[in-house]
Amino acid sequence: MKLIQIDRMSEKPIRRQIYAQIRDQIVSGEMCGGEPLPSTRQLAAELGAARSTVVEAYDMLLAEGYLLSRQGAQTVVSENLVTGAAIVPIRRDQTDQKQKILADFSTGRPDLFGFPRSQWAKLLSGAVIELPPEQYGYTGPQGYAPLREEIASWLMRGRGLNVSAEDIFITAGATHALRILMDLLCPHGERVILEDPCHSGLYGALLSCGCEIVPAEADDHGLKTDLLTGAEHAKMIYVTPSHQFPLGGILPASRRAALIRYARENDVYIVEDDYDSEFRYTGAPVAPLLSLDAQRVIYVGTFSKTAFPAMRLGFVILPSALQTRWRELRTHHDVQNPPFEQAALCEFLKSRRFDRHIRAMRNRYGKRRQALMEALTNNFGTDWSPCGDAAGLHVTIRFPGRRFGDAFRTRCAEHGIQVVPLEDHSIIKGKHEDELVMGYGHLETEAIESGVRLLAEMIAYEE
Amino acid sequence: MKLIQIDRMSEKPIRRQIYAQIRDQIVSGEMCGGEPLPSTRQLAAELGAARSTVVEAYDMLLAEGYLLSRQGAQTVVSENLVTGAAIVPIRRDQTDQKQKILADFSTGRPDLFGFPRSQWAKLLSGAVIELPPEQYGYTGPQGYAPLREEIASWLMRGRGLNVSAEDIFITAGATHALRILMDLLCPHGERVILEDPCHSGLYGALLSCGCEIVPAEADDHGLKTDLLTGAEHAKMIYVTPSHQFPLGGILPASRRAALIRYARENDVYIVEDDYDSEFRYTGAPVAPLLSLDAQRVIYVGTFSKTAFPAMRLGFVILPSALQTRWRELRTHHDVQNPPFEQAALCEFLKSRRFDRHIRAMRNRYGKRRQALMEALTNNFGTDWSPCGDAAGLHVTIRFPGRRFGDAFRTRCAEHGIQVVPLEDHSIIKGKHEDELVMGYGHLETEAIESGVRLLAEMIAYEE
Repeated sequence: MKLIQIDRMSEKPIRRQIYAQIRDQIVSGEMCGGEPLPSTRQLAAELGAARSTVVEAYDMLLAEGYLLSRQGAQTVVSENLVTGAAIVPIRRDQTDQKQKILADFSTGRPDLFGFPRSQWAKLLSGAVIELPPEQYGYTGPQGYAPLREEIASWLMRGRGLNVSAEDIFITAGATHALRILMDLLCPHGERVILEDPCHSGLYGALLSCGCEIVPAEADDHGLKTDLLTGAEHAKMIYVTPSHQFPLGGILPASRRAALIRYARENDVYIVEDDYDSEFRYTGAPVAPLLSLDAQRVIYVGTFSKTAFPAMRLGFVILPSALQTRWRELRTHHDVQNPPFEQAALCEFLKSRRFDRHIRAMRNRYGKRRQALMEALTNNFGTDWSPCGDAAGLHVTIRFPGRRFGDAFRTRCAEHGIQVVPLEDHSIIKGKHEDELVMGYGHLETEAIESGVRLLAEMIAYEE
Repeated sequence: MKLIQIDRMSEKPIRRQIYAQIRDQIVSGEMCGGEPLPSTRQLAAELGAARSTVVEAYDMLLAEGYLLSRQGAQTVVSENLVTGAAIVPIRRDQTDQKQKILADFSTGRPDLFGFPRSQWAKLLSGAVIELPPEQYGYTGPQGYAPLREEIASWLMRGRGLNVSAEDIFITAGATHALRILMDLLCPHGERVILEDPCHSGLYGALLSCGCEIVPAEADDHGLKTDLLTGAEHAKMIYVTPSHQFPLGGILPASRRAALIRYARENDVYIVEDDYDSEFRYTGAPVAPLLSLDAQRVIYVGTFSKTAFPAMRLGFVILPSALQTRWRELRTHHDVQNPPFEQAALCEFLKSRRFDRHIRAMRNRYGKRRQALMEALTNNFGTDWSPCGDAAGLHVTIRFPGRRFGDAFRTRCAEHGIQVVPLEDHSIIKGKHEDELVMGYGHLETEAIESGVRLLAEMIAYEE
């Protein structure tokens, strides 16, 4: 046995240091099978350690079988323990440096400062104190029943949707819902029909599930249902009818009817992602597709944009035929949500603070949208136009005659401007080269104005 | 247009009632394309509603394209809106009645009453108040950095494991970790080598991922590494070396070395599920396999059993080669964990309250294990023996000469006794017919005594 070195400053207990060094000598082959160990008294004296510490280290090695001990005989190293190479230490990842962002028009980001965090802190504290011990255990895959009741009630108030809490299943957000739905509907890489353009993150998530993606063209009024084909092996059509991402259109009634007909004829489920629908700046929120056929449409809702992203709470409304399998899959995926956020959100909805928050944010986001429009006019005159309807936290802007390609992307990166060409969200490229997707929900008016000015300067310099 | 019926007691706003009834008449075909609508003034008078309410309802129908309106002309129904069937309402699931449980020896259930819930409430409240607004947004797939530091420090204190926080990835528990690892290592249904017996829930979860499962026999000392075969297309070996589930053995050093050699030779990753390893009643915790080869072993840890199940917090320690893909997959699966539990657990670990809780629970669970042993002796004499090592929240009991088959299961269900025959956790059946898996962690001493008595009475009656 080589000399054992003890580091008395280490957080690692001495018995563990002794244990680890002997074990390393055994598995690396420095100590051979059958080799006797010094007695615990002898080693303790050598190391200046308590004998009980050495006994503990030997006991661990005995318990794990590195050492053998027989009554009255010396303790020896077990046979056949060499792994054939030294122990491989854990290496480090390189962390990458971030470039300073001067203008940030990224999408999907609500205003975190607008959320009533102190109210939330009180609700969450209250929930923790009031939740009974049973709620700390496994409570099943469907989610906290009182929250499901409150969501049903909110859907009735806000959308006129008549849903039972029994058909609502809590998730950890919309992405999570989609991932489980993929396992539910497309376990063998079946086809998914997807709006084109669509969110690039969604496209990536579906691709990583191994499914075949059939793009279906969308225009300023959403999915072009007259062009729908490729349904032979399709199991799912994923749509954003309240506010097409990223073009922003509301799917008109004739297309809604055509979509339902198509789904019924081809036995395909419609997944309705109702993101952003709370934030419409003209007219009332649009009625979801779900209200047309609750056995054919799967409704996906999330609180990531209406409350805050890190809450990780969303829900699906499932046709009854899918509920048993969903329960199984959710259990296999990640069992259930934690209870505290659920109980806090329940109270947030019940007390109508959520409704007030939505109204306040709709007002704030509407003003920011207006500020963006004015800044674009101030900097680009009439050489631009917004796509789609006035809703949500972003808007797609068309700049006729321009082309936002790789050169533009490079220049943006160099100038610290974060803005996504719509082409990044296109499956079939080349149709939206003159459009930019601009997120504004998280930006103060001043940041919107200075950001648009920077963008305009960069574009002017380029020409 | 048929008569519209307004329910003034409904929570559904009147404009939504008008909207929904007109829309239903349109999609069901009761109102045809081109059919003119009454003027808003006329309909308001008929219904005794404010004209602005009717205007709002019409505006919603116009926005969604159900109605057409031209300057100076009457508003009419749009063409081509019939979906071909009446609107399908949402149906109800049947909820099932639960049988009263008199003796509950189910596994995987910590003592929820032993967790210091009021301390937790304070920590969680503190976390909510102190977390900066950025933590309410998207913070990335790896998890709260201070928590990862504390976990690394805990692994050093508790297990002598030298791990960097940069290699730790927070998850929503062990099941969640496994689900993402399946997508990472076995995206095309590749082989997984699994201990037999193993947890039936784990087996179900892997099956639902569509992978091929190769059972590898385990005995009272864990996986029999000398029998390992079938590695040709295998990508993962899933093992429980600290406390084999359900047999309870600690994998001896010779098998550990053989397992590492096998994994290196066949280019297979080892997934080390280190559940329950905190609760050993003799000797120190066993050093994880990870310490032998951090680039070949993926370590899965969870706080579901040490803190409480609904916390939904666990972690994986990943070889550097897998970290980039893990980040992508986690983002596609469910984005990230919520921040509050993470911050609270961080403080729980940092203040060493977690260490004290573990010590207290180890003491409590050890006493319960002892009570179970005594109750078994009192009721079954010497006709039984425990398998494996004294650790964890359950123990497998061998009753030589008995056979726990379907008749036993039926009798248990009839008598309200919840206890799982080990055969339920076996992949290849017929080898463990005389064994029962008995969870005791969640049971008070009295419940253990009365439960074993009930079990013994039932078995005696059967004979």
